[in-house]
Formats: sequence, structure tokens, C-alpha cells
Amino acid sequence: MNILQKKILTDGEALPGNILKVDSFLNHRIDVRALREIGKDFYELFKDKANDINKILTVEASGIALACYAAEYFDVPVVFAKKGQHKNIGSDVFTAEVFSFTKGTTYEIAVSRLYLHPEDKILIIDDFLANGQAVLGLQKIVKDAGATLVGAGIAITKAFQPGEKMLLDAGIDVRSLAAIERMDGGNIIFRE
Amino acid sequence: MNILQKKILTDGEALPGNILKVDSFLNHRIDVRALREIGKDFYELFKDKANDINKILTVEASGIALACYAAEYFDVPVVFAKKGQHKNIGSDVFTAEVFSFTKGTTYEIAVSRLYLHPEDKILIIDDFLANGQAVLGLQKIVKDAGATLVGAGIAITKAFQPGEKMLLDAGIDVRSLAAIERMDGGNIIFRE
Repeated sequence: MNILQKKILTDGEALPGNILKVDSFLNHRIDVRALREIGKDFYELFKDKANDINKILTVEASGIALACYAAEYFDVPVVFAKKGQHKNIGSDVFTAEVFSFTKGTTYEIAVSRLYLHPEDKILIIDDFLANGQAVLGLQKIVKDAGATLVGAGIAITKAFQPGEKMLLDAGIDVRSLAAIERMDGGNIIFRE
Repeated sequence: MNILQKKILTDGEALPGNILKVDSFLNHRIDVRALREIGKDFYELFKDKANDINKILTVEASGIALACYAAEYFDVPVVFAKKGQHKNIGSDVFTAEVFSFTKGTTYEIAVSRLYLHPEDKILIIDDFLANGQAVLGLQKIVKDAGATLVGAGIAITKAFQPGEKMLLDAGIDVRSLAAIERMDGGNIIFRE
């Protein structure tokens, strides 16, 4: 069991409706010691492709810390997509629409064309994978930039929701640190 | 000259209207090697108070990476205030209104009561200080929690704008890694 799985069991909160809250160490309060280890685990997860990765792409806000710690081990920079209004990064951007099942609304993500290029080999890092919409949006942006998507590293995948399969079907090499098979009455069961 | 000041001179963009863009290494693309050094410099900046700090508080999104790297050197956790809608952290929150001069609008920031306590000794970390509204909002939240505000560490302070003086007048120990005295026709002059 890796550090993230341990933290989920000790500090995560399984709420009705298959909601998993990790606010106490990842999404609101950040345990930087744990995050450093999680960053290293992301490296281990994609070590076989480390030479093919020159940039990590994520989405603000909760992906940023994970992406930075992973990026240190790959020794590459991070680019984070901006959500919603993004006038401050200029108008010359790659964009994608992302539907949020949680909020029932669509938002736009954007990356400046200055920071994504055809020669880039991208690893996406994100905190949660449930319906896969954010990663599909990032995949579109990578495609629009003419760059190569090497894979997507996810901290917590709700494997009982459709996102993971959708990404695999879209040809993305998705790997997760904590894939949750099911959440039964507050018990969290990881996939082997 | 510290690493941040060097990066501002080599990679920052001084635009008309006293706008300083640091998207290429801090606010959109993140140079994690530079950020690690900047984190250490934040520690040096508040080393005299390191024993009085048990938590770092920032605001999403661009404060997060800075706060995490600083937090490692202080060996404390980070809490980041959420902007705008924050239903996912529950209703039991400390809030403050923050006016953005850039956007001409007011937004709310919120921190769950679970992660701020009266015994907390808080160092605020943020990327930019211009009009001081975000830090004043965070100060209100720290006060509402009954916690102690030890200081505010700012990456880039536009010392020619009113924020720095407002924070000092509000009794906050504000210290900056790069205090910009003036921006003359694209030239950036740091305060000694």
C-alpha cells in the first residue's frame, strides 16, 4: 500500500453518494511531506516513460501541488491550465470545454500557446478521475498544440465510475496511485 | 540578487500599465527548480520567526506552489483559501470579501473551520502584493479563527502601489523577496 492509499484510509472521508473527501491532506489543507512522497510515487508509476516526458500538464487549483512534486522527480516544468476567465494569459490560447458532473455546469480551460509546442511530450497529472472530462479536455489541448500525450497520472481514480474506461478507450495511458474499486458504507476498497 | 529577482529580470515581462507578467516561470508555467529555491528564500526571510510558525496560509491558485515549497522548509502544512464557489468544503467556513482591482470585481475567499484553530500561528504566503486586498482578506480569516498572524511573505511586491503600506499599517509583518520600486519603460528597478 502506497502513501496515498494509506492517507486515504487514515485521513480521507467517505461520504454518502460515493464522495471521497481528501481536504485534510490534499485539496484544502496540504500535507507537504506526504505530497513529496506522492510526487515520487508518480515518478515510479511512469519511470519506464520518464525519458519521453518533457513537461507536466495539470489544471488549477488542486492539481498544482501534485504536479510540482511529480515534476521535480522528472526534472521537467509544469504548466497548469487556467479555469474560467483567463484574460490575464492573453487571447492566444488553446482551450477546451469541460463538463463538471459535480456542479452540472461546463467551464473552459485554457493554456497559452507560449507554453505548449509540437515537440512537447506531455504527462498529465490530476488529483481525481471520475468522469474523465478534465483529462479529455487536457488531451484536446495537447492535440491542438500538436504535442504528444505520453500518459495521465491520476492520484485517486474512482474505478467504479466511467472516466477511466473512457480515457483508456481514447488511447490514453492512464495510471493511478489509488484506484478505488468500491466504497461500501464508508469502507474504501482499492483495486489490487 | 536572489533567484526570484534574477528570474524576473531574465524571464519576466514588463508591460504598459505597470503590469509584470511572470507566467513563464511562476503563474502559468512553473519552473519547479526555481520554485524550490524561492521556497528556501522564504524560509530565510522569516527564519527569525520559524519557531513561531505552524501553518502556511495562501489563496488558490498561483499561491499554492510557492506556499508548498516554503512549507517544506518550515516543516509545516499549507492551507489554501478557496476562491468563489466553495460548496465542496462545506458551509462551516471562515470567509472574507476580496476586491480585485485588476478585474474590478469582488470575490469571496473561504477556509474551512476544520483547518484553522485558535492555537495556529500563521505565515501568509502569496505571489503578488499590489493593493493588498487578498492579504487583508486572509488576515480577517486568521482573526476570525482566533489564530495569530505571524507575518506575510510575498514573492513580488509592487512597492509603488498602496498595498504594502496598508498591510504595514494593519500591523502585518510584510516581507518580500522582490520589492519593485518602479518599472520605467520596461526596466524593473528593485528596492535595495
